[in-house]
Amino acid sequence: MQCVMDSGAEGYDQVESGSITTGASIWVQGVVVESQGSKQKVELKVNKIVLVGKSDPSFPIQKKRASREFLRTKAHLRPRTNTFGAVARVRNALAYATHKFFQENGFIWVASPIITASDCEGAGEQFCVTTLIPNSHETADSPVDAIPKVNNGLIDWSQDFFGKPAFLTVSGQLNAETYATALSDVYTFGPTFRAENSNTSRHLAEFWMIEPELAFADLNDDMACATAYLQSVIRYVLDNCKEDMEFFNTWIDKGIIDRLSDLANRDVVQITYTEAIDLLSRANKKFEFPVKWGCDLQSEHERYITEEAFGGCPVIIRDYPKDIKAFYMRQNDDGRTVAAMDMLVPKIGELIGGSQREERLEYLEARLDDLKLNKDAYWWYLDLRRYGSVPHAGFGLGFERLVQFATGMDNIRDAIPFPRTPASAEF
Amino acid sequence: MQCVMDSGAEGYDQVESGSITTGASIWVQGVVVESQGSKQKVELKVNKIVLVGKSDPSFPIQKKRASREFLRTKAHLRPRTNTFGAVARVRNALAYATHKFFQENGFIWVASPIITASDCEGAGEQFCVTTLIPNSHETADSPVDAIPKVNNGLIDWSQDFFGKPAFLTVSGQLNAETYATALSDVYTFGPTFRAENSNTSRHLAEFWMIEPELAFADLNDDMACATAYLQSVIRYVLDNCKEDMEFFNTWIDKGIIDRLSDLANRDVVQITYTEAIDLLSRANKKFEFPVKWGCDLQSEHERYITEEAFGGCPVIIRDYPKDIKAFYMRQNDDGRTVAAMDMLVPKIGELIGGSQREERLEYLEARLDDLKLNKDAYWWYLDLRRYGSVPHAGFGLGFERLVQFATGMDNIRDAIPFPRTPASAEF
Repeated sequence: MQCVMDSGAEGYDQVESGSITTGASIWVQGVVVESQGSKQKVELKVNKIVLVGKSDPSFPIQKKRASREFLRTKAHLRPRTNTFGAVARVRNALAYATHKFFQENGFIWVASPIITASDCEGAGEQFCVTTLIPNSHETADSPVDAIPKVNNGLIDWSQDFFGKPAFLTVSGQLNAETYATALSDVYTFGPTFRAENSNTSRHLAEFWMIEPELAFADLNDDMACATAYLQSVIRYVLDNCKEDMEFFNTWIDKGIIDRLSDLANRDVVQITYTEAIDLLSRANKKFEFPVKWGCDLQSEHERYITEEAFGGCPVIIRDYPKDIKAFYMRQNDDGRTVAAMDMLVPKIGELIGGSQREERLEYLEARLDDLKLNKDAYWWYLDLRRYGSVPHAGFGLGFERLVQFATGMDNIRDAIPFPRTPASAEF
Repeated sequence: MQCVMDSGAEGYDQVESGSITTGASIWVQGVVVESQGSKQKVELKVNKIVLVGKSDPSFPIQKKRASREFLRTKAHLRPRTNTFGAVARVRNALAYATHKFFQENGFIWVASPIITASDCEGAGEQFCVTTLIPNSHETADSPVDAIPKVNNGLIDWSQDFFGKPAFLTVSGQLNAETYATALSDVYTFGPTFRAENSNTSRHLAEFWMIEPELAFADLNDDMACATAYLQSVIRYVLDNCKEDMEFFNTWIDKGIIDRLSDLANRDVVQITYTEAIDLLSRANKKFEFPVKWGCDLQSEHERYITEEAFGGCPVIIRDYPKDIKAFYMRQNDDGRTVAAMDMLVPKIGELIGGSQREERLEYLEARLDDLKLNKDAYWWYLDLRRYGSVPHAGFGLGFERLVQFATGMDNIRDAIPFPRTPASAEF
């Protein structure tokens, strides 16, 4: 709210003397009155102002527009800008709306583990978590020779904290399945990690994921849940963050309110992967990556589908070739596709990825064999199929992409308070 | 709900043939009727039963009582037991009640970072997060010699993912302060880590913390918030998890419902540290650790205060000697104590620890000097005092201890789905 004061107000001398500078914290007392100006309806007529904390003139964020790159180096001060204040509030609303949606629909929040020594996390790029490296912050004097090794020169993992190599999780899904097959519908909402050296506007080394898992559910239930979830949280933000959304609509991404309102009120298009390939093949457009059945969809393909073929709408693509999808997805009767689905949205690309899980023990074991994965490592995951298996399905959503989708922020590093990327983990 | 069926029901032959064994998943259809027995009011009269997923006879959790230790080795199946199902539901209710309490009071949820290369995390026992160690899960063939080093044999951190040593966070507080001094009240709710080799029933290497941070607030506001928070989430669980709380009251911790109800409805006792020392000195009791002003309170002291001196009530102790508390706590006018507070509860000990933060730049810098901490490392934390400082305060609460407090579960490893402790990070 705009504050207006005249020379009669208590403390006005501080304002006049210039001791209240950018970044200062103040305490004001006054009366809310109808505004004289045209920019706002009401303003605060100040009776008294107190300087609570003065700000050194070196305050690094000046009133003129600072670049986003520069602001990332001031991640401790950037929430004081109107853009990052708005991002923080919308992010908060999306998080709370997520909990509300799942809780009101009977889902239980499960804390999937962050550190894991389980062998079934797959061979993705993971961060190692260890106490073998002498971890002195102050000196970083860590001689390589101090790391314990066994006779042949290999690291002696038995001396590590967990007694074996341990990593940061890339997904809580497999753990969530253990709870879904015990207690019915559950969801996770926690941090996950990728040690990929991707310095792009789309990747973070540390990001938050939401992973619901539905018991006694198939792919149709899964797609319905993903759609209802997305519509629910978007509606919540539109209803509860009006001022911030007006800000984004004016300054960051014109038209975003209309686009989101539209999404919140209509069905999401569903097509099969095979239909998507047909559509791309018939497109009057030259793609860098050629399209043929069996190929992974690239960004350019996803953009064409959501932005051109379906005019800016989210689109769910289902039933992907099994060879481009994960081992745990349920095989369809055609023998060549799996019950997988991705929800694509304009600008972001894949926002949600999910599947029905293979609940049949013999199919799952055969698939692990096909992929030359070690079945022993998956003992507990297979147990879920051995003891009272149920059809179940779920999806994962990268929370920072949802924040981008709802705010129009271009770079994912601006959708999380303290972004972690290659060579950057300050603050 | 108890299911009752007679031989006329469809699918009864499966029951009779013994193919529905412990662990199996079934689908039943029937009519809810008044119960013939005395144990429940209603029961389901089954018309049709379908075996959805059979259970191998090797199902490891038999109907007879399994030990908690054994169940920890079956963390993927233990949520199917009534105890761990109830723990999961109460844990979920506490988490949601936490979000509800803070959201309804205008706090914003902030994701504090998990990985941090910041030098001001302090010298606690931290896990190192690295990609320098060749992280092959399948072979664990990681030669020590493959770790890059500089000429003098030290680890070459410049080649690590973040370009310097990085660790798992021990607290989100300092980061939360950056948002509280920008946007007013905030809270974190996320995982934190300790690499302490403590194999006890009270410690986890990975646990969830809730850390609210209040702007324009002092220690009294902080204690009032902590009390209101705790009462609110306990009331929520009593209101929303009646059946599970009856279960705990009957089987795990007799009287827990009365104790929690009592807490939810009355003020928490507040005493100063100096008063606590007096009280302990006058106690007609021999302590293993002698009591004198300036000492840290041990478990035996905390237990005496909450369980004996105040008859099983939570007690807040405030104004601790500055030398046993953290650098960031606000110095009191007496020059020897700080505006810190701990809430102690019966059986658990410290459930909440908080403080008013030192918002005065010169005091904070002097304290860092006293403790021979490197001020440069704290540049961004000091910036919060340099640019528009405000009085602020906050607290931290270990979520698993709250789960123990609300359920009566003895061991903290049974208060989280997949506990991480020395030599154990399975699943």
